[in-house]
Amino acid sequence: MSENERLAKQLAFSLEIDKEKNIFRQTHLSGHGRNENDAEHAWHMAIMAYLLREYANEEVDIGRVMLMCLIHDIVEIDAGDTYAYDEEGLATQKEREDAAKERIFSLLPEDQKQELMALFDEFEDNQTPESRYAHAMDNLQPLILNDSNGGGDWLEHNVCSKQIYGRQTRTRQGSEILFDYIDKVIQKHIRQGHIRP
Amino acid sequence: MSENERLAKQLAFSLEIDKEKNIFRQTHLSGHGRNENDAEHAWHMAIMAYLLREYANEEVDIGRVMLMCLIHDIVEIDAGDTYAYDEEGLATQKEREDAAKERIFSLLPEDQKQELMALFDEFEDNQTPESRYAHAMDNLQPLILNDSNGGGDWLEHNVCSKQIYGRQTRTRQGSEILFDYIDKVIQKHIRQGHIRP
Repeated sequence: MSENERLAKQLAFSLEIDKEKNIFRQTHLSGHGRNENDAEHAWHMAIMAYLLREYANEEVDIGRVMLMCLIHDIVEIDAGDTYAYDEEGLATQKEREDAAKERIFSLLPEDQKQELMALFDEFEDNQTPESRYAHAMDNLQPLILNDSNGGGDWLEHNVCSKQIYGRQTRTRQGSEILFDYIDKVIQKHIRQGHIRP
Repeated sequence: MSENERLAKQLAFSLEIDKEKNIFRQTHLSGHGRNENDAEHAWHMAIMAYLLREYANEEVDIGRVMLMCLIHDIVEIDAGDTYAYDEEGLATQKEREDAAKERIFSLLPEDQKQELMALFDEFEDNQTPESRYAHAMDNLQPLILNDSNGGGDWLEHNVCSKQIYGRQTRTRQGSEILFDYIDKVIQKHIRQGHIRP
């Protein structure tokens, strides 16, 4: 492959992922703003990962964590966002996301396709220090927005504490200290009636 | 400072930068989409920086480049986006951005404030391999979107080739190869009448 072809593939992928900015999540921006999109969420997570790395349970390669955060939702360009507490959507999520992963990363030169797919899978498998810590960020980032908005996203979806704690188990695997913080926030919103006990 | 106070400061900063998602740029998303915001731009730049690092003129610490890309527009939360070809805005840009820099990074614990301000300044000063390459991304990312939209952003602002080449000088300092690509794109849009010669 000539250098021109290689660059063309890299730029085709770069242009394709622009579409992630149109994938909207259930989380709302602070100040009771609009729904957040996946690209914004990933940007926010990556910066938070850097700033809060001292709280990771295990030592992490922070550059890999940041890249993992930046790309972890790319498959949603085809598969859409599946809300954390949408049971029906969750049942078909893996199949939809696998097809998307193959299509989108195949735009890249083969070596970068393999590298980024492996990093994407590492996040999904959640078996390494980096992926466990990245999952803590995936949970903490929307929580601070939702907390700032009086728990409106939980209220809107009538979420119960069992659902939230189920998801936040992963946060604990990445960071005990950040889980302790999150636990206090959840308890506050249960007391305030924003989360069903 | 207790661990709780330190974490509180880190999370206050994390919440504050959420506002960057409301700072809109002149660039439009691909597919003739809406205006792009700063957080999306930074996310896109950071991924492109990683994928295209083989084209940097000098060896770079890619983790530092990515972090630089992610934070380089944070001051625009207060100072707003200054369009690359807005002469009046450019005249007061530094003063507005300095005040914003002090306010926003001061939300962090002192050590992280100093670290991120230094990284921000390094980008602005454009004197290191990392900052030169990051500037190439700052210029290439909107160009691929604008190119995909038939040069609409240039047409809208009636931009001439001298203005564009003035700005793209920085791209050349970061990556000769990517500048060559950009040069071809600019020449195409001059021929097509989207950029004044």
